[in-house]
Amino acid sequence: METIQPWEQLTALVKSTDAEGARDFMESLEPLETVRVVSRLEEDVRAQLLSLLSPEDAAEVIEHMPDAHASEALENLSPTEAARILEELPSNTQADLLGDLEDVDAEAILAEMEPEDAQELRELAAYPEDTAGGLMITEMVQVPVGLSVDQVVDHFRQSSEEYSGYDVQYAYVVGVRGELVGVLRLRDLLMAPVRTKVENLMLRDPHSVRIDAGLSELVHFFEEHHFFGAPVLDHEGVLCGVLRKSGVEAAVSDQGAETFRRTQGIVGGEELRSMPLLLRSRRRLAWLSVNILLNVFAASVIAMHQETLEAVIALAVFLPIISDMSGCSGSQAVAVSLRELTLGTIRASDLGAVLMGEILLGLINGVVLGILIGCVAWIWQGSPWLGLVVGGALAVNTTLAVCIGGVIPLILKKAKKDPALASGPILTTITDMCGFFLVLTMAAFFLEKLR
Amino acid sequence: METIQPWEQLTALVKSTDAEGARDFMESLEPLETVRVVSRLEEDVRAQLLSLLSPEDAAEVIEHMPDAHASEALENLSPTEAARILEELPSNTQADLLGDLEDVDAEAILAEMEPEDAQELRELAAYPEDTAGGLMITEMVQVPVGLSVDQVVDHFRQSSEEYSGYDVQYAYVVGVRGELVGVLRLRDLLMAPVRTKVENLMLRDPHSVRIDAGLSELVHFFEEHHFFGAPVLDHEGVLCGVLRKSGVEAAVSDQGAETFRRTQGIVGGEELRSMPLLLRSRRRLAWLSVNILLNVFAASVIAMHQETLEAVIALAVFLPIISDMSGCSGSQAVAVSLRELTLGTIRASDLGAVLMGEILLGLINGVVLGILIGCVAWIWQGSPWLGLVVGGALAVNTTLAVCIGGVIPLILKKAKKDPALASGPILTTITDMCGFFLVLTMAAFFLEKLR
Repeated sequence: METIQPWEQLTALVKSTDAEGARDFMESLEPLETVRVVSRLEEDVRAQLLSLLSPEDAAEVIEHMPDAHASEALENLSPTEAARILEELPSNTQADLLGDLEDVDAEAILAEMEPEDAQELRELAAYPEDTAGGLMITEMVQVPVGLSVDQVVDHFRQSSEEYSGYDVQYAYVVGVRGELVGVLRLRDLLMAPVRTKVENLMLRDPHSVRIDAGLSELVHFFEEHHFFGAPVLDHEGVLCGVLRKSGVEAAVSDQGAETFRRTQGIVGGEELRSMPLLLRSRRRLAWLSVNILLNVFAASVIAMHQETLEAVIALAVFLPIISDMSGCSGSQAVAVSLRELTLGTIRASDLGAVLMGEILLGLINGVVLGILIGCVAWIWQGSPWLGLVVGGALAVNTTLAVCIGGVIPLILKKAKKDPALASGPILTTITDMCGFFLVLTMAAFFLEKLR
Repeated sequence: METIQPWEQLTALVKSTDAEGARDFMESLEPLETVRVVSRLEEDVRAQLLSLLSPEDAAEVIEHMPDAHASEALENLSPTEAARILEELPSNTQADLLGDLEDVDAEAILAEMEPEDAQELRELAAYPEDTAGGLMITEMVQVPVGLSVDQVVDHFRQSSEEYSGYDVQYAYVVGVRGELVGVLRLRDLLMAPVRTKVENLMLRDPHSVRIDAGLSELVHFFEEHHFFGAPVLDHEGVLCGVLRKSGVEAAVSDQGAETFRRTQGIVGGEELRSMPLLLRSRRRLAWLSVNILLNVFAASVIAMHQETLEAVIALAVFLPIISDMSGCSGSQAVAVSLRELTLGTIRASDLGAVLMGEILLGLINGVVLGILIGCVAWIWQGSPWLGLVVGGALAVNTTLAVCIGGVIPLILKKAKKDPALASGPILTTITDMCGFFLVLTMAAFFLEKLR
């Protein structure tokens, strides 16, 4: 009972260049299914599918794809096809996707666009990600100062086709240099007498964000002000684009996903199983090979105390337990610090406060876990002294691990290193070394009792 | 050079019940500072601050707080004060905060509200989180079918005060039972002749979401349709509220943060360092104590092969390395699976596809890491046979760990368990046991060569 999988059906349609069939098939898919089916296609089939569909439909599909797939697919299309599809997407998505491409690929696609659009897109793509400039869209309604309500309404009527793809909520009133002078709400336009001048209807001194404002500043801006969007101004007050609240929230979500990925040792960006095997393997190994060196370094502590271990072989059972448990306790503290840094309840300089918050907790949990493992060791191996050594070492090492785990992300952040990526390996290396050292030197001290 | 910290200043103002001073102080804070300063206050001072401010200002502060602080502060206020502040918040925030309170506290606050509002809020709070009902707001503009454009404009004028706090973009046209019949865009209202009937202007058969639609369905809805918001209907087509795209994105971001928290062993919800020490300690221990038992279980494999270890004590150095490295390789695969489940590129039943995606990668990385650690062992301990045993065991165990790590989240998801919480401990227990077993049995086999 071999069933034909939907991606196999779609592949067959694409390979027989059945444009209509492919389109109908895509339309028949549940939204939840689209991403899964498309991600299962072979890389070249995915690109062929896009060139088979109309640019509008292809743009729709691209928006469903993970970013990594989307930029890969664009690279596999001809620059002309890629340009036609890109033009159907919102400006910030265009800029993001181009930013993910190799420079030569991006330039080839830009060369296929209207020079003016290409220039605008180049500028957009140049703004750093996770700033107002990198997150804004340029699809917005600008009206020059001096118009009356009926003139603005006329303007809307005339531009209705251009604006049909926009999410229009405000019109931005600009002066001669393009500088923002006010914001016009559509509903106010609706309620005002037709001869009213825009200047008398608009909100003056509107809240705006600077083009280089960073993500956490933007998050707080939208917490402070209940807007759906805000105008983005350059350093001379000129209106450059509109930042939507949803754009900021999506960026926060992406950042969270990236933090998670990096703590788990996935480096170099999103990994999807449909990516080339060797790329995935190489990226994972990059992190693992650093880790193995750190591990060997930590384990050298054991080698230095080999004679103690030889005398009390039962200790060997407990070394991995101490290593793992200290790592877990420390990781919890790392997670809380990373989270508090994101929420803004602590900042990188708050070392003292974090240490105060962890030291007592570390002691309590250390004592509890130490007693637990101490009793296990005592009962299992029949030696109260072994229990004392193992339990004591875990208690001290847990306290250390919790304190170190709490402060490492702050120290890395202050040093402008990525706390999500580096906290884990640094933490476990230190706690392994301390843990092994504690167990083995305590055991050496009580050697007579342990034999 | 003792500097007075801002939270100490604020505490002094609150303790001297200086309402004006506290308000001015709060207004002087940078948005980024507000959350940090408020989170540093003592729990009771935080509640006093809220009761000192006007309900509007207090609501503003509440929106800046992490949820855990906000609900705790509400519990510390009198029900009357809490009700006044809550009323200033959007309906879904009200419902979320009430949902976080103990039932008796929530009821006491509801008793202080208008019975009608309280009833509405009770209903809102009853919808499961992360469904359309749990995420929607009820602040929306409804107009009955049959009106003309000028009547609608009149309606807007008359209700302008009520609507001032709303983000109005659409008006929803409803029939006599409250069933949704169409959606009216403000900009269309703006451009239409005044006598036009609403029925002729509205978009018919508008896209809507069912009240019980889940988060991933909602994410895809907004990917599919470029709306800022969508009407939420119950099973009889009656309009219940409006779901904003930003609400869905915030929920996705929260879910990501929770996944991260749980993978790192933070259970029972958000942990902030300002929470009571014993609560934090207890929650962390809940996860650690399960973990320590799993660890002891895994280490028993070592105990069973103690005589091999005694014969080749150098192996003890490599046991923690194998445990840690296999754990790391497996965690990477877990992270990729969790992420792909979120993105929708795989689902719980795709075990075969995931296994195919990991098995080769596991082999490649296993061989590379095995050769690496094998060479280290050979050079360090001067025994090629030791290198073979340790390297071989790591190679096999890495392959296993990567395969297991890839599929565990899917299996847990299928069994309706939380993959973020349980994948890590299950993974490391299995890989530790296999790793220890592999090293020690291979060593026993080559014992003559290793001595």
